[in-house]
Amino acid sequence: MQISPLAPASFPDLPDINGVTFATAAAGVKYKGRTDVMLALLAPGTAVAGVFTRSATRSAPVLDCQAKLGGDASGGAAILVNSGNSNAFTGLAGDGSVAALTAAVAEASSVDAARVFTASTGVIGEPLPHDRITAHMADLVANQQADGIDAARAIMTTDTFAKGACAEITVHGQTVKIAGIAKGSGMIAPDMATMLVYIFTDAKIGQSALQAMVAGANDRTFNCITVDSDTSTSDSLMVAATGASGADVTGNSEFADALHSVMLDLAHQVVRDGEGATKFVTVAVSGAADDADARKVALSIANSPLVKTAIAGEDANWGRIVMAVGKSGAVADRDRLSIRFGDITVARMGWRAPDYSEEATSAYMKNDALEIGVDLGIGSGASTVWTCDLTHGYISINADYRS
Amino acid sequence: MQISPLAPASFPDLPDINGVTFATAAAGVKYKGRTDVMLALLAPGTAVAGVFTRSATRSAPVLDCQAKLGGDASGGAAILVNSGNSNAFTGLAGDGSVAALTAAVAEASSVDAARVFTASTGVIGEPLPHDRITAHMADLVANQQADGIDAARAIMTTDTFAKGACAEITVHGQTVKIAGIAKGSGMIAPDMATMLVYIFTDAKIGQSALQAMVAGANDRTFNCITVDSDTSTSDSLMVAATGASGADVTGNSEFADALHSVMLDLAHQVVRDGEGATKFVTVAVSGAADDADARKVALSIANSPLVKTAIAGEDANWGRIVMAVGKSGAVADRDRLSIRFGDITVARMGWRAPDYSEEATSAYMKNDALEIGVDLGIGSGASTVWTCDLTHGYISINADYRS
Repeated sequence: MQISPLAPASFPDLPDINGVTFATAAAGVKYKGRTDVMLALLAPGTAVAGVFTRSATRSAPVLDCQAKLGGDASGGAAILVNSGNSNAFTGLAGDGSVAALTAAVAEASSVDAARVFTASTGVIGEPLPHDRITAHMADLVANQQADGIDAARAIMTTDTFAKGACAEITVHGQTVKIAGIAKGSGMIAPDMATMLVYIFTDAKIGQSALQAMVAGANDRTFNCITVDSDTSTSDSLMVAATGASGADVTGNSEFADALHSVMLDLAHQVVRDGEGATKFVTVAVSGAADDADARKVALSIANSPLVKTAIAGEDANWGRIVMAVGKSGAVADRDRLSIRFGDITVARMGWRAPDYSEEATSAYMKNDALEIGVDLGIGSGASTVWTCDLTHGYISINADYRS
Repeated sequence: MQISPLAPASFPDLPDINGVTFATAAAGVKYKGRTDVMLALLAPGTAVAGVFTRSATRSAPVLDCQAKLGGDASGGAAILVNSGNSNAFTGLAGDGSVAALTAAVAEASSVDAARVFTASTGVIGEPLPHDRITAHMADLVANQQADGIDAARAIMTTDTFAKGACAEITVHGQTVKIAGIAKGSGMIAPDMATMLVYIFTDAKIGQSALQAMVAGANDRTFNCITVDSDTSTSDSLMVAATGASGADVTGNSEFADALHSVMLDLAHQVVRDGEGATKFVTVAVSGAADDADARKVALSIANSPLVKTAIAGEDANWGRIVMAVGKSGAVADRDRLSIRFGDITVARMGWRAPDYSEEATSAYMKNDALEIGVDLGIGSGASTVWTCDLTHGYISINADYRS
């Protein structure tokens, strides 16, 4: 598979996080010749927060993780992820697989099964051959030698590049590190952006304070991206804070900002790896009746197949933006509506801008990164979402993914 | 452009409707070498009903038609349609174009401008060169010689075949005829299925009774189809009843059924001409908490890019159906969910069906017409919608439509 033309130049140099170790294995769940299992072990006292898909058909591992959040952190924790099979819509067998996996981690390590969080990503509806994973468990626990990039690679499915992001700040004179990995390129939409994301930090913070911080940042990052409007049954974002730095970040806005920036970076990388994507598109809506209306308009534009195919064709077809505004359900008034592509105003007050230049706009559309701005001229509601174009590549990848 | 593989074998032999005549012209609004204007003249006393897009950015002609419905029918009426330019998001100039067109019809005929209904379909946001149309007006009024198929052809945009449907019933011993034409193949979604539809009958019925009948049938036909989830700014469905047969059909269920069948036939033809479509897909949802929930699930499946690309690839990827159910927002319980492709049950009670055969299901997916059945196992709500697959053809058509 070719690497997305929108991929970052390189994987970042993720810092080691004190209290976190990784291992990976090639268990052959579905893929051959690559790693497909990642096990992270977290030191005793690590606070684990998480947000998950709201799908009514969410997977067995998601249900299990949700039940376990907020448990006793004293004995450490583990995160076990496999790619190739999502263990979703697998009925009682799916619950059984989760139980087998968490028990195997507990048996091979000192972590209680109630503190083992799992995730599975890949095909829906096929029983997970969990024996292939448990066969590697002793090795996974014994050899916690993997780097962040190894961990990021093991959880990939249709991703064309491994995704990582990091930050380092100083809190009360102490260095606090944040390192995160993510996977995801299709079935990406709020809520929440369909993917697996694991972020680790040596900051010290209680579970409930961390949970609130993560949920807030999630709303402005992963819940604001869409590739194809399809929401996965397995979306999971987990943030683990080991506390090893000794720096208490409870209520610390600098830490919250750093966490937000790592999440935004990873969210953008998922869009940049959108299946078949050739353009990274920012949709910024302002002047809406309220923020919720702005978000409706932004997502209506970002999810419109006609808008996305026009962008793929580098066609400044702003009429389709008008269409997407109109169908969004948000309060809109044709005669107050303005639309810009980058800095070029194409429509103003319900009409093509008098100085509109097809040539200048077409030239702008050739950029890899585009911004579509819409001002509804009604109120002060605003929202920004990120998406990609819809290309032949998306069709090729998805018309024959399973076979 | 190649004709859709899902097209009907031939255009039906539409009956002449007493009180309705057509003319077409090649005005060169945008297209060269084909007709692009259709004028229908309706006899005095014709009742005209209509339903239109609910887009907040609806076009000038739509706003004008909506204001005119229910006016005095005694002096006859006219319907003027052009293809190539939608006269949408054209500000005050758009209103001016509508006024110029309706005035030109009135001047050339005996129809009052207040009874001239117009529609425009094509590119959004470019001023309509209405002079090109009014230049042909005297001819259009003088030479009302066109057949239904001519009228159907003149209103096409990206359509690959002309769409017509008809019915004939006997009411109180008198023959009542219905003939309809439609255009539409992209930007198709409720509300309402994006298209132009004109249906004519010699039945006798008052405007408000007709309006209620049309609105009811619309809910079960054009509002139940989707090609790409994008809603046009110009959707218009109009039904004109001349009364020439003398048969009063007010409250007549047989006529209502015949009208419904003509509308359903045309709605299916629009899906069969969905941009790039190679599969006609019926999505039938049952067992929902209520009909609204069933509809949510059906549309979530029918609009999912991942479901539609899997169908394009003849891939029995029912896991994506599970995903679409989960994201729909409807009440669903994984362990009560059943899914079938045609008569083949693929999932039952939240799990792959024990007798599931990949081979049999894959063979079924090769059919041109497919049915996806979902039973939520919760209540008695049901809904059926129709859609097509998402293919390379859709991308090719839409990534370079305007230029």
